[in-house]
Amino acid sequence: MGLKEFGMRCDWIAVDWGTSNLRCWAVDKDGRSEAFAESDRGMARLDAYEFESALLELINEWLPASGAVEIVICGMAGARGGWIEAPYRSAPCAPMSAEMAMSPVTRDQRLHVTIVPGIKTARPKHDVMRGEEVQIAGYLADYPLDNGVLCLPGTHTKWVHVKNNEIISFRTFMSGELFDLISRHSVLRRCIDTSQWNNGEFEQSVDRIFSRPEFLAGDLFSIRAESLLGELPPDLTAARLSGLLVGAELAASKNYWFGHTPIILGAERTAQLYQSALAKLGIEARLFNASASTLRGLAKFRQLQGNTP
Amino acid sequence: MGLKEFGMRCDWIAVDWGTSNLRCWAVDKDGRSEAFAESDRGMARLDAYEFESALLELINEWLPASGAVEIVICGMAGARGGWIEAPYRSAPCAPMSAEMAMSPVTRDQRLHVTIVPGIKTARPKHDVMRGEEVQIAGYLADYPLDNGVLCLPGTHTKWVHVKNNEIISFRTFMSGELFDLISRHSVLRRCIDTSQWNNGEFEQSVDRIFSRPEFLAGDLFSIRAESLLGELPPDLTAARLSGLLVGAELAASKNYWFGHTPIILGAERTAQLYQSALAKLGIEARLFNASASTLRGLAKFRQLQGNTP
Repeated sequence: MGLKEFGMRCDWIAVDWGTSNLRCWAVDKDGRSEAFAESDRGMARLDAYEFESALLELINEWLPASGAVEIVICGMAGARGGWIEAPYRSAPCAPMSAEMAMSPVTRDQRLHVTIVPGIKTARPKHDVMRGEEVQIAGYLADYPLDNGVLCLPGTHTKWVHVKNNEIISFRTFMSGELFDLISRHSVLRRCIDTSQWNNGEFEQSVDRIFSRPEFLAGDLFSIRAESLLGELPPDLTAARLSGLLVGAELAASKNYWFGHTPIILGAERTAQLYQSALAKLGIEARLFNASASTLRGLAKFRQLQGNTP
Repeated sequence: MGLKEFGMRCDWIAVDWGTSNLRCWAVDKDGRSEAFAESDRGMARLDAYEFESALLELINEWLPASGAVEIVICGMAGARGGWIEAPYRSAPCAPMSAEMAMSPVTRDQRLHVTIVPGIKTARPKHDVMRGEEVQIAGYLADYPLDNGVLCLPGTHTKWVHVKNNEIISFRTFMSGELFDLISRHSVLRRCIDTSQWNNGEFEQSVDRIFSRPEFLAGDLFSIRAESLLGELPPDLTAARLSGLLVGAELAASKNYWFGHTPIILGAERTAQLYQSALAKLGIEARLFNASASTLRGLAKFRQLQGNTP
């Protein structure tokens, strides 16, 4: 990584601390990412006192011998059971504000840590987000939205309605986690082959469940029965399961995306999956890189705090 | 158990060998169960060569010093990956026939084992059952049905359409397994308290998802969000999740139970849950003990084979 010479250019450190992963960027004075490091020490695996060492493990080489470095963190590190609980701001609201951020005390005096607060909503149902608000802010910093819809796919996919650059409402869907649970831990694990993919089968399953959401419960076991009876080739199984779950999600989130051109902020493969599912339903969606919007959002948060012009 | 004196009265042995459990009954000449034994050595935990010893562990004391005892087995012992694969008979058909049973070779010459075949169907979708056909046969032996519907709730609930005492079609739902997976292994595990139950919340959730099955995908994460925000008391969480899943199942199985008085063959608590869910939708259902119907069905199978008058 050549960090000896690099160290001088690390102006601050951006951190996305999720449930399963920890990702850190060293950022220079011009806002460019100069180094990246990640580990699987996500919030779910750590007790509160372990966060500082998990962070140091990745960023130690970036730190100066003396003097402090600002570290801005978004995501589950601020959840209950995380490093320190950061409050939720209430939607409708701007995706970020300088208020309500939290700073855990660190043993290493070089670390000046700030955790971005999450957002909660009470309508249409109670819901929460942590980390996605930063991605949304990062996207809106470059592409303001009068009235639009963002989709942030992942383990827990968020659908978000934005008006005048404020988050009006949002809803979370567990489709990603359900896919993992069912394909790895249920009776279907014996027949689901996640190494193969068939997009036609995926789109057909999306369409079926979107039109008839009540078929979901029965169609899940059909994957096993059809496999046992030689009626479902292994290369279709993962796409079938994924299509059933995404189809159910799109049926439930229709009031978000209908009549809009959703913007999907996600990792490439997952984002393309959602784009293809929406296309099957006649909806055009645009893709935008999630990591880029996270980094842009965290930089924006520093501006809001007045730490940078 | 006092088996020395009991041993003389063990005419044959009935076995229900499921995915997770093994249950055995010693049956006397009059068809009465004289002893019962069970273990957690279900099919999922055993390799083919381990089935004989798992069985002997439970029934050894019931066996005579010499001479053979007939052992009739239903359930997953006959599945692919079980003791020996028994074929599937094709519905529409009577729940049992003397044909296509399988007999694994045993090292212990006292064991004369027969495994009842399963049933498959191609309509409305491909599906399979192993074990439930014996319960159905046992019920029908005493309560013939011209045209009716049976519900066999469990890890994998079956809804079965019966006409003239034959199985016309059936469908499997994974609601029980999904409840286990979600409440024990998903992000919801932190907030679901399975030690408490609220039947009002259960019925309300059944009703909500039955009317709007597309709400399921979003309502799952709401359990976590509402819990985090203090909007869902812990004593409602398990009933909420169960209600959402059973509501989705009842939406998907409506063509089975609508216009019928379903007969629920199940363990007491689960059967009552389904009865209460159906009552909420205006459907009266009758309960019948599942173990009794299994035992009766296995005895009936012996008759079909001509081993008993």
